[in-house]
Amino acid sequence: MSTSIAAQLAYEIAPAPSFPTFPLNQWYVAALSSELKDKPVGRTLLGKPVVIFRAANGQVAALEDRCCHRALPLSNGTLEEGRLRCGYHGLLFNGEGKCVEIPGQDKIPSKAKVPVYQVRERDHLVWIWFGNPDNLVPNCEPPEYDVHSSGKYVFDGSVYHYDAPYQLIHDNLMDLSHLGYVHLKTIGGNARIHMNAEMKVESDDSTVRVVRYMLDSVPPPTYTAAYPFKGNVDRWQEIEFHVSHLRIWTGAVDANTSAMDDPNRGGFHMRGFHGVTPETETTSHYFWTMATNPISDPEATKAKVIEQTILTFDEDKQVIEAQYANMCRFGERPLIDIHVDVGANRARKIIERLRTGD
Amino acid sequence: MSTSIAAQLAYEIAPAPSFPTFPLNQWYVAALSSELKDKPVGRTLLGKPVVIFRAANGQVAALEDRCCHRALPLSNGTLEEGRLRCGYHGLLFNGEGKCVEIPGQDKIPSKAKVPVYQVRERDHLVWIWFGNPDNLVPNCEPPEYDVHSSGKYVFDGSVYHYDAPYQLIHDNLMDLSHLGYVHLKTIGGNARIHMNAEMKVESDDSTVRVVRYMLDSVPPPTYTAAYPFKGNVDRWQEIEFHVSHLRIWTGAVDANTSAMDDPNRGGFHMRGFHGVTPETETTSHYFWTMATNPISDPEATKAKVIEQTILTFDEDKQVIEAQYANMCRFGERPLIDIHVDVGANRARKIIERLRTGD
Amino acid sequence: MSTSIAAQLAYEIAPAPSFPTFPLNQWYVAALSSELKDKPVGRTLLGKPVVIFRAANGQVAALEDRCCHRALPLSNGTLEEGRLRCGYHGLLFNGEGKCVEIPGQDKIPSKAKVPVYQVRERDHLVWIWFGNPDNLVPNCEPPEYDVHSSGKYVFDGSVYHYDAPYQLIHDNLMDLSHLGYVHLKTIGGNARIHMNAEMKVESDDSTVRVVRYMLDSVPPPTYTAAYPFKGNVDRWQEIEFHVSHLRIWTGAVDANTSAMDDPNRGGFHMRGFHGVTPETETTSHYFWTMATNPISDPEATKAKVIEQTILTFDEDKQVIEAQYANMCRFGERPLIDIHVDVGANRARKIIERLRTGD
Repeated sequence: MSTSIAAQLAYEIAPAPSFPTFPLNQWYVAALSSELKDKPVGRTLLGKPVVIFRAANGQVAALEDRCCHRALPLSNGTLEEGRLRCGYHGLLFNGEGKCVEIPGQDKIPSKAKVPVYQVRERDHLVWIWFGNPDNLVPNCEPPEYDVHSSGKYVFDGSVYHYDAPYQLIHDNLMDLSHLGYVHLKTIGGNARIHMNAEMKVESDDSTVRVVRYMLDSVPPPTYTAAYPFKGNVDRWQEIEFHVSHLRIWTGAVDANTSAMDDPNRGGFHMRGFHGVTPETETTSHYFWTMATNPISDPEATKAKVIEQTILTFDEDKQVIEAQYANMCRFGERPLIDIHVDVGANRARKIIERLRTGD
Repeated sequence: MSTSIAAQLAYEIAPAPSFPTFPLNQWYVAALSSELKDKPVGRTLLGKPVVIFRAANGQVAALEDRCCHRALPLSNGTLEEGRLRCGYHGLLFNGEGKCVEIPGQDKIPSKAKVPVYQVRERDHLVWIWFGNPDNLVPNCEPPEYDVHSSGKYVFDGSVYHYDAPYQLIHDNLMDLSHLGYVHLKTIGGNARIHMNAEMKVESDDSTVRVVRYMLDSVPPPTYTAAYPFKGNVDRWQEIEFHVSHLRIWTGAVDANTSAMDDPNRGGFHMRGFHGVTPETETTSHYFWTMATNPISDPEATKAKVIEQTILTFDEDKQVIEAQYANMCRFGERPLIDIHVDVGANRARKIIERLRTGD
Repeated sequence: MSTSIAAQLAYEIAPAPSFPTFPLNQWYVAALSSELKDKPVGRTLLGKPVVIFRAANGQVAALEDRCCHRALPLSNGTLEEGRLRCGYHGLLFNGEGKCVEIPGQDKIPSKAKVPVYQVRERDHLVWIWFGNPDNLVPNCEPPEYDVHSSGKYVFDGSVYHYDAPYQLIHDNLMDLSHLGYVHLKTIGGNARIHMNAEMKVESDDSTVRVVRYMLDSVPPPTYTAAYPFKGNVDRWQEIEFHVSHLRIWTGAVDANTSAMDDPNRGGFHMRGFHGVTPETETTSHYFWTMATNPISDPEATKAKVIEQTILTFDEDKQVIEAQYANMCRFGERPLIDIHVDVGANRARKIIERLRTGD
């Protein structure tokens, strides 16, 4: 389904800022593989405190983050050959959540265990499944993300904590027109070109795709820092929304040197992965990676792109948290929509339908 | 009406520390003119988040501090020739709250506007009107404050945020006897002289005036730092309470050289303006300026007086916030009154009558 | 009553982390004598804000920490020859809570007084009595603690604030098996030896005694830092729980040189006093002293032992606060018991009986 912008300009009352539940029966990002080193990672996901670690068999394990003895977070403990030792009285748990040792005590009672969560590691991302009570076992595998594994790109990433509900991050990512005002110093550049660029929006039951081309435009600072453009560029922004994550692929070629929709187009590429996982109803985890095709020195190029990306995402975090704090100050109040909201509003409808089952 | 101290010494139960509403139909201080520079000022006043800026016509404007599009505080935005650009998607608002530009979109819908507040600038102070629903248009002009404009004084000021309800600041300002214990290092000096000084209290429906003279007393540190007194001084303290602000004029002449109530008395003058504006029921803004008559070097004298004033007001803030925190710890409990509370209690009666319309 | 470990291994549901009240009719520690110097000490004890100071007669006084005039904490004030001057308007109170001076006012009304609490100083500890409404007068004296007064030991101590309810501190102190996991760097040492050591538990209506001997074991870092052991040691841990405090006496002699239960055993001694006083239902004060028998240089030995003790208690605080935060995250949920919980569970039963009068 593709819709013209004009048809969207009937101004509606936007959904009120209440976020009672999350879509379940979904794979959410729980961690970047790069986080799982010599210490367990403790993190609240969809309201549930979880401890994540690489178990003895090399696979990632996720347990309830609470020792069944005296409730210390297991993430305060230590890893011993892929098993997790509680930092208070030393109970030892394996990747299935079973207590396998109680120091100083021979018998291990059957109740000595902690709940376990379904997790999968794929393409350097760790995914966790939160199902409905009648659907606790995943009915599908987590999505692949070949950009991390193909060898064509260098990438790095990080995890940001947001004092804002996850859908405000969706809104932000679905609408790159804010680049013109929020990200002047990095990937933004000419505000008017962003706002006036033609935007194509497509969606189905579970995804939204927003594509925007900005032809013959001045390349923004991040781009010129990373790639030897000759002058103006033809620039693309392709956003693909999924319930638990977005793929935002942007880039540019020298103006008039390639078709925008050519899958083999050359030039400079930034391929962003954005896992947006609710922590609670009002706070979120934002797992991101940024990949790029290195022209010459891969490590230097990666460092440059990541540095710029961090600057950009810090700006977003600041704006979104200020936005949410203001929504809390003012309470439920009508908002107006403008042309750039089309994609974000479609994403909200998908979430709404999944939340309410309607 | 003037009352002897003796008649006030029937100890009453003081009003409980509950502050449900504020007197409306009043001009409150919203900002010092000196704050309005190249950035919008965001501030919650009487529970309402407001953004204040100097508009294209040179006059001060105050809007609801929330973009009607996605609720970002407009105070996070930037000023463009007296208009306010939202820092998220770039909507541009004028001083009347009307959206005059939506980047990338030709049609500006009539709903694209934010509420506007009545403000006036007078004598270097910015005043805002909060009226009852049936009285949103001011029925008077804000008070003048000639001290800022006459050219006879040098002055400076600042805004303090208080974690305490506004009436506790009134109490503090209405009773300068606390100078003897709180402000030993600055404007205080001999505690006993402060407490024993004769105090005259007058009031009407909307003002309270407390006057106290301390004859032939040792000048406090701030005074001797700023003025070449020969020895002991005759000292005056004149406090005038209005619902939204106080004028506290203090000073001294060399002992026995002038009548205390001579309007042309010489000596050293400190003319304090104190705008006390509720932020919420439990927090406040305290806008103050301090003016003095410079004997020789105006800038050096001003710097000296302001430095001392800041020390003094920091001490007050510390005491009042500790007092309020303790009131919260203990909850509603009786207090006893002493002789110095006469003025403050009259001010509370005025506020009470205006709040309850009784 | 002495019970074998085996009999305790029926796993029960542990009491839920709700702490509605405290046992009353008890002496609780309010301060260390060493805290009472030239400033009043303000501290909330069992939910009641108290100001503590040494009064004119040399005895310790404790008043409600709220001036009866304008509710400033009296602990913000200053001491004048054993009387307490309020830091706002200068009202002066004696150790009986009576206002003895109102600056600038001759008559002191009879209502000008603040409530007083029963306190006693004994063996360098200040105790306060919180009684039931029908039992506000103490029916006994606070316990002695001869270790502070006998001259045989050097000691020092401190007060820690805990964001955790007091009974979690009891649990921690009653079970020294956590030394093996929490205190590896200081008094801990070999975890397995701690967990496997035989433990004897005795209790009556108001005390629990846990004794554990670890024979022929490697001395932990703190011990070797303070005493010239020749090699392995015989080590004892004697814990005595009382409702408001614990005595934990530990130490060691060279292996096989003394009977463990010989009251005149030599070697290295650490005698810990642990006053655990609820601040609120969810926070606590932890008053501790550590005494040791100096072998040669008393001051250097004391400094060494105190330094190690502080490291240890910092580790405990970190674990217990993390435990409580996690209990709050998870809410009421069953816990399982292991063999080391015997002593702590008996202590909880005593508290429970005293709280509920059952």
